[in-house]
Amino acid sequence: MQVTASEVLPEGLEIGVKDGKISCIGISLPSSASTKIVDAEGAYITPGGVDSHVHLAQKNAPTGDGWETGSRSAVAGGTTTIIAFASQQREDTSLYPVLKDYHAKAKNQSYCDYGFHFILTNPTQNILDQELPVLAKEEGITSVKLYMTYEAMKLNDREILHILFTCKALGMTTMIHAESHDMISLIIEGLERNKHTEPYFHAVARPRIAEDEASYRAISLAELADAPMLIVHMSSEVAVQHVRDAQTRLLPIHAETCPHYLFLLSEKIKGEPHDHFSGAKHVCSPPLRHDPKDLEGLWQSIANGTFTTFSSDHAPSKYDAVGGKRLGLMDGIPRFSKIPNGLPGVETRMPLLFSQTPACLPVEKARLSLPRFVQLTATNPAKLYGLDGMKGSIAPGYDADLVVWHSAGRGARTITQNLLHHDIDYTPFEGIHVGNWPRYTIIRGNIVWDQGEGVVGEMQYGQYLKRGRGQVLTGKTGGVARGMLEGERKYWL
Amino acid sequence: MQVTASEVLPEGLEIGVKDGKISCIGISLPSSASTKIVDAEGAYITPGGVDSHVHLAQKNAPTGDGWETGSRSAVAGGTTTIIAFASQQREDTSLYPVLKDYHAKAKNQSYCDYGFHFILTNPTQNILDQELPVLAKEEGITSVKLYMTYEAMKLNDREILHILFTCKALGMTTMIHAESHDMISLIIEGLERNKHTEPYFHAVARPRIAEDEASYRAISLAELADAPMLIVHMSSEVAVQHVRDAQTRLLPIHAETCPHYLFLLSEKIKGEPHDHFSGAKHVCSPPLRHDPKDLEGLWQSIANGTFTTFSSDHAPSKYDAVGGKRLGLMDGIPRFSKIPNGLPGVETRMPLLFSQTPACLPVEKARLSLPRFVQLTATNPAKLYGLDGMKGSIAPGYDADLVVWHSAGRGARTITQNLLHHDIDYTPFEGIHVGNWPRYTIIRGNIVWDQGEGVVGEMQYGQYLKRGRGQVLTGKTGGVARGMLEGERKYWL
Amino acid sequence: MQVTASEVLPEGLEIGVKDGKISCIGISLPSSASTKIVDAEGAYITPGGVDSHVHLAQKNAPTGDGWETGSRSAVAGGTTTIIAFASQQREDTSLYPVLKDYHAKAKNQSYCDYGFHFILTNPTQNILDQELPVLAKEEGITSVKLYMTYEAMKLNDREILHILFTCKALGMTTMIHAESHDMISLIIEGLERNKHTEPYFHAVARPRIAEDEASYRAISLAELADAPMLIVHMSSEVAVQHVRDAQTRLLPIHAETCPHYLFLLSEKIKGEPHDHFSGAKHVCSPPLRHDPKDLEGLWQSIANGTFTTFSSDHAPSKYDAVGGKRLGLMDGIPRFSKIPNGLPGVETRMPLLFSQTPACLPVEKARLSLPRFVQLTATNPAKLYGLDGMKGSIAPGYDADLVVWHSAGRGARTITQNLLHHDIDYTPFEGIHVGNWPRYTIIRGNIVWDQGEGVVGEMQYGQYLKRGRGQVLTGKTGGVARGMLEGERKYWL
Amino acid sequence: MQVTASEVLPEGLEIGVKDGKISCIGISLPSSASTKIVDAEGAYITPGGVDSHVHLAQKNAPTGDGWETGSRSAVAGGTTTIIAFASQQREDTSLYPVLKDYHAKAKNQSYCDYGFHFILTNPTQNILDQELPVLAKEEGITSVKLYMTYEAMKLNDREILHILFTCKALGMTTMIHAESHDMISLIIEGLERNKHTEPYFHAVARPRIAEDEASYRAISLAELADAPMLIVHMSSEVAVQHVRDAQTRLLPIHAETCPHYLFLLSEKIKGEPHDHFSGAKHVCSPPLRHDPKDLEGLWQSIANGTFTTFSSDHAPSKYDAVGGKRLGLMDGIPRFSKIPNGLPGVETRMPLLFSQTPACLPVEKARLSLPRFVQLTATNPAKLYGLDGMKGSIAPGYDADLVVWHSAGRGARTITQNLLHHDIDYTPFEGIHVGNWPRYTIIRGNIVWDQGEGVVGEMQYGQYLKRGRGQVLTGKTGGVARGMLEGERKYWL
Repeated sequence: MQVTASEVLPEGLEIGVKDGKISCIGISLPSSASTKIVDAEGAYITPGGVDSHVHLAQKNAPTGDGWETGSRSAVAGGTTTIIAFASQQREDTSLYPVLKDYHAKAKNQSYCDYGFHFILTNPTQNILDQELPVLAKEEGITSVKLYMTYEAMKLNDREILHILFTCKALGMTTMIHAESHDMISLIIEGLERNKHTEPYFHAVARPRIAEDEASYRAISLAELADAPMLIVHMSSEVAVQHVRDAQTRLLPIHAETCPHYLFLLSEKIKGEPHDHFSGAKHVCSPPLRHDPKDLEGLWQSIANGTFTTFSSDHAPSKYDAVGGKRLGLMDGIPRFSKIPNGLPGVETRMPLLFSQTPACLPVEKARLSLPRFVQLTATNPAKLYGLDGMKGSIAPGYDADLVVWHSAGRGARTITQNLLHHDIDYTPFEGIHVGNWPRYTIIRGNIVWDQGEGVVGEMQYGQYLKRGRGQVLTGKTGGVARGMLEGERKYWL
Repeated sequence: MQVTASEVLPEGLEIGVKDGKISCIGISLPSSASTKIVDAEGAYITPGGVDSHVHLAQKNAPTGDGWETGSRSAVAGGTTTIIAFASQQREDTSLYPVLKDYHAKAKNQSYCDYGFHFILTNPTQNILDQELPVLAKEEGITSVKLYMTYEAMKLNDREILHILFTCKALGMTTMIHAESHDMISLIIEGLERNKHTEPYFHAVARPRIAEDEASYRAISLAELADAPMLIVHMSSEVAVQHVRDAQTRLLPIHAETCPHYLFLLSEKIKGEPHDHFSGAKHVCSPPLRHDPKDLEGLWQSIANGTFTTFSSDHAPSKYDAVGGKRLGLMDGIPRFSKIPNGLPGVETRMPLLFSQTPACLPVEKARLSLPRFVQLTATNPAKLYGLDGMKGSIAPGYDADLVVWHSAGRGARTITQNLLHHDIDYTPFEGIHVGNWPRYTIIRGNIVWDQGEGVVGEMQYGQYLKRGRGQVLTGKTGGVARGMLEGERKYWL
Repeated sequence: MQVTASEVLPEGLEIGVKDGKISCIGISLPSSASTKIVDAEGAYITPGGVDSHVHLAQKNAPTGDGWETGSRSAVAGGTTTIIAFASQQREDTSLYPVLKDYHAKAKNQSYCDYGFHFILTNPTQNILDQELPVLAKEEGITSVKLYMTYEAMKLNDREILHILFTCKALGMTTMIHAESHDMISLIIEGLERNKHTEPYFHAVARPRIAEDEASYRAISLAELADAPMLIVHMSSEVAVQHVRDAQTRLLPIHAETCPHYLFLLSEKIKGEPHDHFSGAKHVCSPPLRHDPKDLEGLWQSIANGTFTTFSSDHAPSKYDAVGGKRLGLMDGIPRFSKIPNGLPGVETRMPLLFSQTPACLPVEKARLSLPRFVQLTATNPAKLYGLDGMKGSIAPGYDADLVVWHSAGRGARTITQNLLHHDIDYTPFEGIHVGNWPRYTIIRGNIVWDQGEGVVGEMQYGQYLKRGRGQVLTGKTGGVARGMLEGERKYWL
Repeated sequence: MQVTASEVLPEGLEIGVKDGKISCIGISLPSSASTKIVDAEGAYITPGGVDSHVHLAQKNAPTGDGWETGSRSAVAGGTTTIIAFASQQREDTSLYPVLKDYHAKAKNQSYCDYGFHFILTNPTQNILDQELPVLAKEEGITSVKLYMTYEAMKLNDREILHILFTCKALGMTTMIHAESHDMISLIIEGLERNKHTEPYFHAVARPRIAEDEASYRAISLAELADAPMLIVHMSSEVAVQHVRDAQTRLLPIHAETCPHYLFLLSEKIKGEPHDHFSGAKHVCSPPLRHDPKDLEGLWQSIANGTFTTFSSDHAPSKYDAVGGKRLGLMDGIPRFSKIPNGLPGVETRMPLLFSQTPACLPVEKARLSLPRFVQLTATNPAKLYGLDGMKGSIAPGYDADLVVWHSAGRGARTITQNLLHHDIDYTPFEGIHVGNWPRYTIIRGNIVWDQGEGVVGEMQYGQYLKRGRGQVLTGKTGGVARGMLEGERKYWL
């Protein structure tokens, strides 16, 4: 059965492909279509996954995946497009060299199609006024990511406002990591002073309230600027409630969550009984939360429509390698604050979420519907990041990027490191049972992953994607911020 | 451009039709398709409208539309399927004769396809246990409507609970008219005692709080019963907020609104300066509200996804006819409580809402997106009422029910009684300008409305639709009601 | 230290008493005061308790306390005024004989002062229009209690509205028992059908959602009527949140809770392992709740000001007596629905709450402040029920009704049946440790309870209290109900 | 009638005074009391006003009131205690000289009693760790005020957290001016760039959303620190709703509002038609708001208990004087951002609020009760700022600080500059009618204001008040912040 963002279509339809694009969908298509994909045997066919939050080959994670291994892992898990980060360092006063650098890392190295977001850490006036308009238009980079925390990356509220104004004008989407730096840095200092430095204290150092406050602040900044925003990797119920309230009021606030926040708790960061430091494998920010109710709250927001996208935040570091997670072990003393943040997950993202649909569970146990799965993993990220018309849907004219799943009741497997294709030495989801796994991953009409054969695509197959303007998927711009009068912004814009 | 519930597809696609059904959709379809509908000239093509709240030929509205005029009016406005009511009277102890009666009224009288909801006013044990299962399965009537108000129709909370349990077990959708009868009847008595009986006092007699309380109560009953529900014709912001909260918590609560609540205010019920009774034309329940903020609140709920369906509640009575609105004028004395409730609107529903999309307005002024228009007017009612796979979408295998609109900037018109096709002597939307109007209405591949030619379909063309189980479109069943423990229901079910 | 509703006064003040009333309060009062009560030794002095929810000698509880034992128990626990119920039976068409009957039961039988609320179960027009005005004015009965549940007592929404209008006009306070009868009766039937009839199923039969819905409905009725209301014995967090929201909007909605809802959970109703029926001792309505979070939610509402009064709802039946709790054991088969509802608690009320103040606990552990204790147990019920100026405060001109507690760190005891003075054969609070207990209870200047000596007052000492108009303690009347226009009520009142 | 924070006592009581303190309160006190104040003729007697937010003789307002004129104005309006600010400048690395300086300005210059809050603009570790403990204990300064905005004063979130921890440990109250500096500074730049610099644009530059965001942030910081806080001069409904929510959850968050936010709108800042700059008289921060609904929201929060204190924020500058409001007129060009912020109001505060009680208005029109008036203007600020037992109540042992008002229906007057006693050349409340005015103001038993005679106290009469630890009046400390586990703070504190 084909699944779209709004329907589960009856079995038996055929998908005609021509020049890598879907040319038609229908019943008993004539043989003139160059390729036909036949929906049969009860298989589920979904759009290829668009993973819009992937870190590959970033300078600050030397032991993480590069493009080859990262994209290989992606296609093996049903992802056909990734959007990774081209990350400005504070000292970079122009984005052109940054982009050039990241292009060099990716070119001819990717099994799947890909694009870039910019991470802005030094938003100079020149970059905002001169470079971004050109880069958006000519290079198709139509999104930026900002940090409210991390000493080396955080921007202040005023800088964030400037970027929001700029991005709104250019039709770019602003992604934001929302945690209160001041709360967190003060707690970290206290923990270090008191010698509480094992990995678990990472979760203590970044309490939910830090995310909650920063999320509310980020939403307020976007409301003032009348600009669309996506809050990345949301991990807690109260913060998401702020998004829900904003969406109710039609603010253009989008939200993303990630597999680890739906499946794992802070308990994991305690590590093995005999090796507490192994908890470092589960260090990411925001941290895994303490309370099963947070999981419930996030699943609820998956189902009720609050979350816009579901991404991997694949940001891995090896555990047993110089420069990896062990940076947090200094002379045998754990220092949680030095552990590289981030978990691997680009390969497991699609199966983990698919396993919670009625394709794998009785309907009353299912956490989300199949169309909602498609929205979260493909259609919405494609629209939000300017790939609409090309990626994220099964429709004529779109790239023939597809995942063919096993039929209901077949294809179950238990996630384990041995089966994965990344270049990381562990998976945080070890031992989790998923009810299905991609049987085929198809990009532009070609099979790149065949569960029987393994990765059958070629490394240089992936193409760079110039993206267009992002769509607003919730709420709208043009609103009046709290306490303003209609039209008041014109005085100061 | 084809518009689906999730996409606006690029221009140029073709829709192949065979035996009244869509056989394929694609680029340059081979000529072997028996019929091709070509998306060209910038026209918008949407699924044919499904109007799930239409009163035709009901005993209590002798001057209203019958099937011929009602369905004629429907197709002229882009509606291809109507679901009307087979209404039990208190004295009816079986639904079979009721259904037979309504079938007789409709058979060979309809320009468009149609189905029935039952209105239950006397839910005997026999009806619930013996008749509904058969009627659902064999006659395809998978929805019922209940009233919490009106002396002749209202059910008490316990009866509502019984029906909810029954309908849940049968996969039927329960529709409910939520207003507090006790509040309203007390106010009406007071108004009559004080001789405030002009039509306008209809709005005074049914304050928002009556809808608000009853909506909260209805939601609580559904939560206790763990059963899906749709609250019909919601008219006010606070009541809708209850639905929003319920949806956030994943209760399966759906909501409907209607054109008059989005476009008209209680001011209208005051009538002409020289003829206050003419306000009777605007008497419906719930009443038009006092405050422009209610309109804003409803538009917000249209856009943020709270409303599931947008229906006409076409429930008209002629103004100048014996047995029509003038029943409320007794010996020249107005008696608002005797005015037949309801407004005509089956023809104007689609254009009124379409006129608020970006197809007719600058995007920042638009009230809703085009895919949201499709969800509200076609896809959602089709799914909710068990027509999925047949009606409500443009996809292979579905009936080829389509509306072809003018291209952007063309097709505007001002609503006026002369142009309409119902058998009612006024329209409450007189003088409202809409930015587009259906150019063609197509049912099962045949054009039934051609704006140039008028209604070109035939009266006996419409088919009766046996409907399947309804889908839950928001939230889910299987939840634990407030204050219960997991599994507690099993003790008493 | 004297504690008032707003202050803890410094030690050393003296209270002069003359003719049973406080004549002055000050430092080193001249000896001319006829009696002086000296605040010394670190004792706490609070106003005598006003218990505004006490059932004594009601027909439907033949084994419960009568006035002698009930009032004796009251003074032994620091309560100096009780307001009990004169309960209309459905067949009573006039309240005069009812009142006469209850006066006869109480006269010369009470150790403490007392008044009556009417329970209305048959609010005839004559009672509302003719009797209540006279009874309020001449007999000083300025409050009524209504039930939304119990087959023999429940009123419908329209009757409730009529009473609210009447009471508002007379300055009377309307108390309401808010649970959805239709939900509960349906569940009870199901439980009995399935043979789940042990006492514990009483808690299953009355889920929180029944209280929540009815509370929202009651508040809406009061809002429509623009009339003050008190919701009695609230037991759950969501229902109280409705009150909080109403108070935020300045509706005159008051709320009461009781000791058992703050200290006990439904676990108790399971009874002894070898004797499940003994759980009958804990059967009251609303039932004890399942979840410790309900306790937290109620304590929060104690502290944040949402609750107006804290009453015992002393409504006991003996456990081991014909006509008592064992009515629920029929031929050895438990029938929870036949167990007389209610718990004894008039004596333990004040110490249980006092034990949660900073007088007994470290301030960070304390649940409420001392002034809040005084508000809840004395000042607020006195004001709400028209005893202001006479009862509930330590101020010149007020009756010298006082409780002298032990100094901090002294007076602790464990509640046990042997120590209590009621005529009931158990206490639900058995084994709970309280940090203090009244050392002296003083009514109109006379000691009636001396912890060393026991009850030293005389049975006929208690006086009947004619009460005045109640005060509105939260919000105000004169508001516009949701969706009405200013002044709209005048059309129908 | 004496009015306390919880009662309106019956007329006829006498207040005995000895050595400036209330020695007793009672009926027909013996003549041995050295002074007796007799409550007669229907007069209202309230505690003397405690104005806890007054700016006098601050360096940054050279044309504002000094102590002589400020305190003179205070007593003429019923205020008997003021708490003014000793304001650290950024360059001050010790608070001792600051305090010495402000003591010098106040000593022998005050008609009323007074204390100091510190304004902290440079919270060095030495000040927090070494000076504040000593200053709190020995000098009785137990509160500090912080700014989140103003370039010269604002602290960042981390500094605020440090202060909150320190103040909590010392029992000090932290006051905070909550507006988002980054939002405001960006808007101001835009307005200036666009030449929108007339005074009215001050209101445009500081939209409600800036207060709303900063209030939420401040509350979150206090929650993390588990420390009491008061948000000063709140001006808008949404921000206050954050406080309400925090209070519901028992966070120790207090809130203050001021007369101008209850009575005036931004319209006023437009100035005279012929002289827009005269709007400068109404420039204060947060600004007067646009919408009458903000007034309603604030009055609601006055009545429902959310506001803890009601202060003047007397922060005046002369209009027609060098260094006054005309700083905002540069070469005839208005520059709103240069206008000294603040309004005079210490004299009008008490009468403005009293005029909204049932002493001056029909009860359904009254905005607040008389006890609530007392809480807001005297009892609460006294408790919150460590003056309990001395100021703010009419009770034995307290200073005999009283206001005697006219009896109901008498004493009305229209506020006009001529009648006031400050040294400012206008009042923002010009022309507002108040229903009563203090007839006598009494400090420590001596009349200092006699409406017939004028100010009859002496300038050196006012005493400096060493204050004790502040009380927490809402919520409590000891809670667990959002997302923390019980006891988690101990790891990092």
